[in-house]
Amino acid sequence: MSAQDELHPDDIQQHLREVQALLSRHKVVEELVHRQDMPRHELVENLVHKQHLAELQTRLDKLHPADIAYILEALPPEDRLFVWDLVKADRDGEILLEVSDAVRETLIETMRPDELIAAAETLDADELADLAPDLPPEVMQDVFQALDSEGREQLRAAMSFPEESVGALMDFDMVTVREDVTLEVVLRYLRRFEELPDHTDKLFVIDRNDHLKGILTLESLLINDPEMTVADAMHRENIISFEPDDEADDAAQAFERYDLVSAPVIDRERRVIGRLTVADVVDFIREESEAEILSHAGLREEEDIFASVWDSVKNRWAWLAVNLVTAFIASRVIGAFEGSIEKLVALAALMPIVAGIGGNSGNQTITMIVRAIAMGQVEPSAMQRLMKKEIGVALFNGVVWGGLLGVLAWWLYGSVSLGVVMTAAMTLNLLLAAAAGVVIPMLRMRLGADPAIGGSVMITALTDSGGFFIFLGLATLFLL
Amino acid sequence: MSAQDELHPDDIQQHLREVQALLSRHKVVEELVHRQDMPRHELVENLVHKQHLAELQTRLDKLHPADIAYILEALPPEDRLFVWDLVKADRDGEILLEVSDAVRETLIETMRPDELIAAAETLDADELADLAPDLPPEVMQDVFQALDSEGREQLRAAMSFPEESVGALMDFDMVTVREDVTLEVVLRYLRRFEELPDHTDKLFVIDRNDHLKGILTLESLLINDPEMTVADAMHRENIISFEPDDEADDAAQAFERYDLVSAPVIDRERRVIGRLTVADVVDFIREESEAEILSHAGLREEEDIFASVWDSVKNRWAWLAVNLVTAFIASRVIGAFEGSIEKLVALAALMPIVAGIGGNSGNQTITMIVRAIAMGQVEPSAMQRLMKKEIGVALFNGVVWGGLLGVLAWWLYGSVSLGVVMTAAMTLNLLLAAAAGVVIPMLRMRLGADPAIGGSVMITALTDSGGFFIFLGLATLFLL
Repeated sequence: MSAQDELHPDDIQQHLREVQALLSRHKVVEELVHRQDMPRHELVENLVHKQHLAELQTRLDKLHPADIAYILEALPPEDRLFVWDLVKADRDGEILLEVSDAVRETLIETMRPDELIAAAETLDADELADLAPDLPPEVMQDVFQALDSEGREQLRAAMSFPEESVGALMDFDMVTVREDVTLEVVLRYLRRFEELPDHTDKLFVIDRNDHLKGILTLESLLINDPEMTVADAMHRENIISFEPDDEADDAAQAFERYDLVSAPVIDRERRVIGRLTVADVVDFIREESEAEILSHAGLREEEDIFASVWDSVKNRWAWLAVNLVTAFIASRVIGAFEGSIEKLVALAALMPIVAGIGGNSGNQTITMIVRAIAMGQVEPSAMQRLMKKEIGVALFNGVVWGGLLGVLAWWLYGSVSLGVVMTAAMTLNLLLAAAAGVVIPMLRMRLGADPAIGGSVMITALTDSGGFFIFLGLATLFLL
Repeated sequence: MSAQDELHPDDIQQHLREVQALLSRHKVVEELVHRQDMPRHELVENLVHKQHLAELQTRLDKLHPADIAYILEALPPEDRLFVWDLVKADRDGEILLEVSDAVRETLIETMRPDELIAAAETLDADELADLAPDLPPEVMQDVFQALDSEGREQLRAAMSFPEESVGALMDFDMVTVREDVTLEVVLRYLRRFEELPDHTDKLFVIDRNDHLKGILTLESLLINDPEMTVADAMHRENIISFEPDDEADDAAQAFERYDLVSAPVIDRERRVIGRLTVADVVDFIREESEAEILSHAGLREEEDIFASVWDSVKNRWAWLAVNLVTAFIASRVIGAFEGSIEKLVALAALMPIVAGIGGNSGNQTITMIVRAIAMGQVEPSAMQRLMKKEIGVALFNGVVWGGLLGVLAWWLYGSVSLGVVMTAAMTLNLLLAAAAGVVIPMLRMRLGADPAIGGSVMITALTDSGGFFIFLGLATLFLL
């Protein structure tokens, strides 16, 4: 951190280390107090103790809510709750919004209903809607009662949209102007604000019925002659707007593609009902990609690294169970060929290679195709073309890698025909993987399911069982 | 698309379909012309033909460069090049910036040096730096010659920073003001601009030596009295700025955490040298998460879905090779126990289950820990604590899932001791997976390597070979 009190990207970890240092000093003192048990020292120790606490509190008060959230996530449970208690109550709401779901749960568990209500009441309607699912119903009821009618209306609206929709991401803060006034009037109007809503890069031009007429960017407001009217300075065409039912993912792609900072959300009658900002979109993009990476490894949600064993087990068991079922099926396929393996035990050693390469190669194909589908760039009609390419790749890999492993099998076991069966089985399993890698996501797309979910598990199950069956079957036919 | 010419998130796919429709109409006409071979019809056909082309071109001219990039990516090679030729030459540069790396290569390959130079000359220095690695050296040399001295300086600077640094993402467009003038003067100054740099949400306040003195947000400019001086309206404290050597990932986290739209980039003497905007950061976040998802499946880079078989093979072979090597090692572990398998062939059928659950569970652990490390929230000192938790989860899963599979093995093969060995082997392999899942990323972090890379392959290799060794070893010791 430079002398001029500037924030630097590394600072967040600096903050964390400072808080940790203060915490451990605090703990050393506490331990001393407990251990010595000498009443005449107590007062002094207590003073030192209090001084550390005060220092820690001052430090926390200066931090951005997002930074406190980061620190809370990085601290083990006892330290986390200790720091949480030191945070000023009026910041609880903002901080709860920033922490991860898993950590939020641990914090909310420790709060009394009246504390939760106080925290919730510091939030805007759209923020409340985000927090609502984690709050006890009786708390939400009290909070709802305390809102004014506009707030209730907004909260009801925000909570009515499905989680992955624009409606769930939008906020209700915005500045609107009329088209018949001059820019000078707009400038004077803005000077009456104490502050503008975050991420205001444009004002929404509406008529008396709230219908969107155009967009006045701060840029046009600033570079144009103040005598000009809003109607002349505003954009009327190519306005990018969203409806609350639009999918958040499409909106995120639009923000990325057109480099937006904010955009109006309108209803079917073109009335402006809210606003989407890049901050919400960035959070959404990050959460989506996190969720995708986690789901690849079979984690249901982001895990509090200090979660209890039981919480971790709950977060992970479903995927393990599915994989065990598929592994068990593969095991039964092998079981069907136990007679062959007994006669030629080399099969047992070679079969995992055949299954493995199919799984790896199938996952490459499916990952590539799922991503292209997610971007909307694959028409169902492209299936034939993609299939031809993937079959080509599989044949190439089958000849090269299958051939190599065939030679190794020949060399290891001194049997040419075993080598040939190895090569043939690897090629066939690669072809199976390629076909499944194209068909599974395309089929799921046609059926309207999310092509990304579970594809990896399905293809691995298929190439495992399929690989064992192909290899052991070929061996039984041609070698025994 | 509504009547008022508004853009809607679904429009991009609408555009794609329209272009595809126009293309196929064009192709039908071409085919007719070829097939009929009737000279008297030629003129008419040619007219229809030209009309379709004109329609397509008009359509393309209206589209945003990012939309054209999207369409180019979704079209197979022949259509892609056909559309690319129709795009106005002065937009080539912008579009090349927007397409994926793989598609960019296919487009650049078809362009003549003079076309490339013309395209490059339409770009800013920071954009040129992004494109430079894909351009032939002689083209870059000509482009460099054509720049003025400031442009050369900026291009040299932009290209000198490593790919994942703030310097590589920053641009050089910004508005700076002095602190001793009034807001009124700033407002008048801005009115002399034709347009403001994209994403201008704040002006940088500098002294005569370009040193950063503060930040004047457009918000303060707009809500404050014009008679106020910049010095009074600007922020001096808690300014978030970056240095060009800062890691892009840290900057992205800061943008996300503090909801930034733009931030100054300063050198060690606090001179403002550039600017980072949320648009660059969003692109970076998306690219990073794409790269992570692709690398999990062993794809080196985003693949053009219409890539040739050979390009796909090149993109995928390295990962397959590594996995084949680890599968071969696992196969040799099994080979060492062939005598045991010959005596008890059930081992061959059960061993993939032991290996599989270790791999799945190890990947869950490593994914969770790698993510926490990436956020900077895991201190090396936390290792003991994490290890304890993961060992706990592994023991639990070993008892539950291992016990279940042990009972199944007993039931299938009528041997209690085989069931006990199964349970023990699964538990031990789960413990191995948990230990490796914690140690591998922590060790890589201490060694300064990227903990994310290759962890999944390493842990799967370990739990495969380890699982076979533990299960077959235990069986050899206790069952034979």
